[in-house]
Amino acid sequence: MTTETLMRDGAKEFARKTFDDIREFSRDHVIGVSRQGYGPKENMVHDYVRRWADSLGLEVKVDRCGNMFVTLAGEDRTLPCYMTGSHGDSVPQGGHYDGLAGVVAGMTAIQWMHDIGFKPKRDVTLVVFRMEESSWFGKAYVGSLAMTGQLTREDLALKHRSKDQTLAEAVREAGFDPEDMVRTEPSIDLKRIAAFTELHIEQGPTLDSDEKHRVGIVTGIRGNFRHKRCVCTGVTAHSGAVDRQYRHDAVMAMASMLHRMEEHWAEWLVRGEDLVFTVGVFNTAPSAAIAIIPGEVSFSVDIRSLSEDTLKRFHRLLESECSVAADDRGVKFDFDRLLVCEPAKLDKNLVTHLMTSAEKAGIPARYIPSGAGHDSAVLANLGVPASMIFVANQDGSHNPHEKMKLEDFMLGAEVLFTAIRDFD
Amino acid sequence: MTTETLMRDGAKEFARKTFDDIREFSRDHVIGVSRQGYGPKENMVHDYVRRWADSLGLEVKVDRCGNMFVTLAGEDRTLPCYMTGSHGDSVPQGGHYDGLAGVVAGMTAIQWMHDIGFKPKRDVTLVVFRMEESSWFGKAYVGSLAMTGQLTREDLALKHRSKDQTLAEAVREAGFDPEDMVRTEPSIDLKRIAAFTELHIEQGPTLDSDEKHRVGIVTGIRGNFRHKRCVCTGVTAHSGAVDRQYRHDAVMAMASMLHRMEEHWAEWLVRGEDLVFTVGVFNTAPSAAIAIIPGEVSFSVDIRSLSEDTLKRFHRLLESECSVAADDRGVKFDFDRLLVCEPAKLDKNLVTHLMTSAEKAGIPARYIPSGAGHDSAVLANLGVPASMIFVANQDGSHNPHEKMKLEDFMLGAEVLFTAIRDFD
Repeated sequence: MTTETLMRDGAKEFARKTFDDIREFSRDHVIGVSRQGYGPKENMVHDYVRRWADSLGLEVKVDRCGNMFVTLAGEDRTLPCYMTGSHGDSVPQGGHYDGLAGVVAGMTAIQWMHDIGFKPKRDVTLVVFRMEESSWFGKAYVGSLAMTGQLTREDLALKHRSKDQTLAEAVREAGFDPEDMVRTEPSIDLKRIAAFTELHIEQGPTLDSDEKHRVGIVTGIRGNFRHKRCVCTGVTAHSGAVDRQYRHDAVMAMASMLHRMEEHWAEWLVRGEDLVFTVGVFNTAPSAAIAIIPGEVSFSVDIRSLSEDTLKRFHRLLESECSVAADDRGVKFDFDRLLVCEPAKLDKNLVTHLMTSAEKAGIPARYIPSGAGHDSAVLANLGVPASMIFVANQDGSHNPHEKMKLEDFMLGAEVLFTAIRDFD
Repeated sequence: MTTETLMRDGAKEFARKTFDDIREFSRDHVIGVSRQGYGPKENMVHDYVRRWADSLGLEVKVDRCGNMFVTLAGEDRTLPCYMTGSHGDSVPQGGHYDGLAGVVAGMTAIQWMHDIGFKPKRDVTLVVFRMEESSWFGKAYVGSLAMTGQLTREDLALKHRSKDQTLAEAVREAGFDPEDMVRTEPSIDLKRIAAFTELHIEQGPTLDSDEKHRVGIVTGIRGNFRHKRCVCTGVTAHSGAVDRQYRHDAVMAMASMLHRMEEHWAEWLVRGEDLVFTVGVFNTAPSAAIAIIPGEVSFSVDIRSLSEDTLKRFHRLLESECSVAADDRGVKFDFDRLLVCEPAKLDKNLVTHLMTSAEKAGIPARYIPSGAGHDSAVLANLGVPASMIFVANQDGSHNPHEKMKLEDFMLGAEVLFTAIRDFD
């Protein structure tokens, strides 16, 4: 057995134990794990990471917002660091790996470097972001937004999903000052980050459907154009007494419009555009009944793409197909405010570096877009050279059935390790 | 001015006054009229009809269920009667004419015969049915079902839509014995009805969209095949992270299936089938959200036709299109119990007689199906020769905006008058 193999096995055992330890204290009383941002279980993740860092003699800092930075010192400490990490919280009754995989990957890479006695040229810093999940207070990326001076007082006033508590109160309970969360200067100097890589489970089936490539190098983070609640209004009438030509049926108008949009979507994919389209909420009026032609449908819209141009054009097409359906059927469509989240551009050189690192490590990797948003996008949008590694996982995410194979995780962690090791 | 014109004007004034008088005491405190079956306002309609009958010296009978029969005696009292009429109740905050038009048409025809001194060969009987509307206790045709021995104890136990009262209690409050409502022998001898004609507002836009034909002779009463709650089950997933080929989107599966069903429907109409198809209720799961691919849609189905064969074949087609969508998209469809209401066959000779009577009276009439159910269907299904006359109306029915023009009503009433007059 080579030294290299021994080291790889040691790293794997380290990762397994870390995942197991954290799972043990993260269990909720229902199913899965529940680690609320700024809640006791997230605090315990931070405590766990600190104990590990102390045991290796690493530097530990916590910014004013509770984000933790663990640094393996480099040879030249004047150089900006290579940062890696993710978030320690989970959705309620969520899976174990969304967020945590990126934290453990950073820990594993640093442990590995420590074990082989590798001294990096520049600092290698593991970041553990606070509260990334929006399920608790309705706001995503709280930790990274606060760190970059982008959280607002309105955000702090948001209410907990089930308790009578504001985000500000939760932050105070965790030992931080809510006033520090809304300061507009970043809590760290973003220019001191030479590169940022976040490892994350894919949360989709693409890699898991691919026997060869269990690791993905993310090319970009999809932006989205969304509407929370649009309304298609027709005319209610007796379902038996009104013949087809006299109907203004909101459900049939929607069905026809969605059918056409789905055809367009398929065509756009064929010609190479990156695009997903979802109507996640679709409800007839509360007064709807079996024997009444439906006069109202409310629905949500979620269009996502790596390309802002694609988002704009598909949204225009949606408006135009709604207008066709409105004319054809004597219904009308009302759209609420368009919510725009621009695609995040990942750093091209860094993305290439990750792929090269995978090749060097002999790990088959493929390019893949990220459909979900991540803390990486917060940094990327502020000009930090950012990148992501995806690891195949099973049964989606944000649910207690979420799974990830340790073997797949280790492939991703080794790409991360190699990328950091060979950065300079 | 001819005597005939004078008589026609007199009948019109009688109808106008009758509608106005009844509207006056039927107003509710919100909007429209509210005449609950077995409630005070329906009782007042019966009292009003009785006072009018008494003033003309007509025979009045009330059966054990509260249905009222007003008879203009014929020359030969051994012959079975010509019966006409409808119901006196309305839906809550409903329109004035649904049901009442048929009562007033019968009154008008008898008043007209009385005024011109016409003595019919056989008895002419106006029936005022109790509670036809299901909105109050969830059961339709209560009066005519009880009359024909078809009401059940389960029906009597039904609860009022908003009050803490059962149907049995409402019946008792109106002065009738609930036990009498569920006796299984009919309260009248159905063989003593030679012909039954119910005039009713159309409740749909077909006649009102027709400048020439303001009166319809009903060819049959559509039956229906219904499902209260079917479920399309897909797989929820992250709306950004799961690409098109991996989705099992329940909303898109429904849209595609409904689009195909609508195409079939259009083709079936072209080849002359009578058919309407409605999905009145369509809801994603309560946990549905803007950023989640929808994994569940619950929906209702209502297929109506004059032909039971059409109902069966279109229902089979629905099952087969659902099965295609299920295979294509990896979703599944679960159908709850099929609720069957067979089409009611109206009496061919009587339908022809009504059309001939319209021609004789110089009133343009067209054949039309009835999409809604009516007391006529209860009688027709028991072998009573039944028929219906529809009158154009505006703004649908079962709502306070329901309208009917007195001119149109009088055309229908004159067809009824003529049909009864010339029956023998």
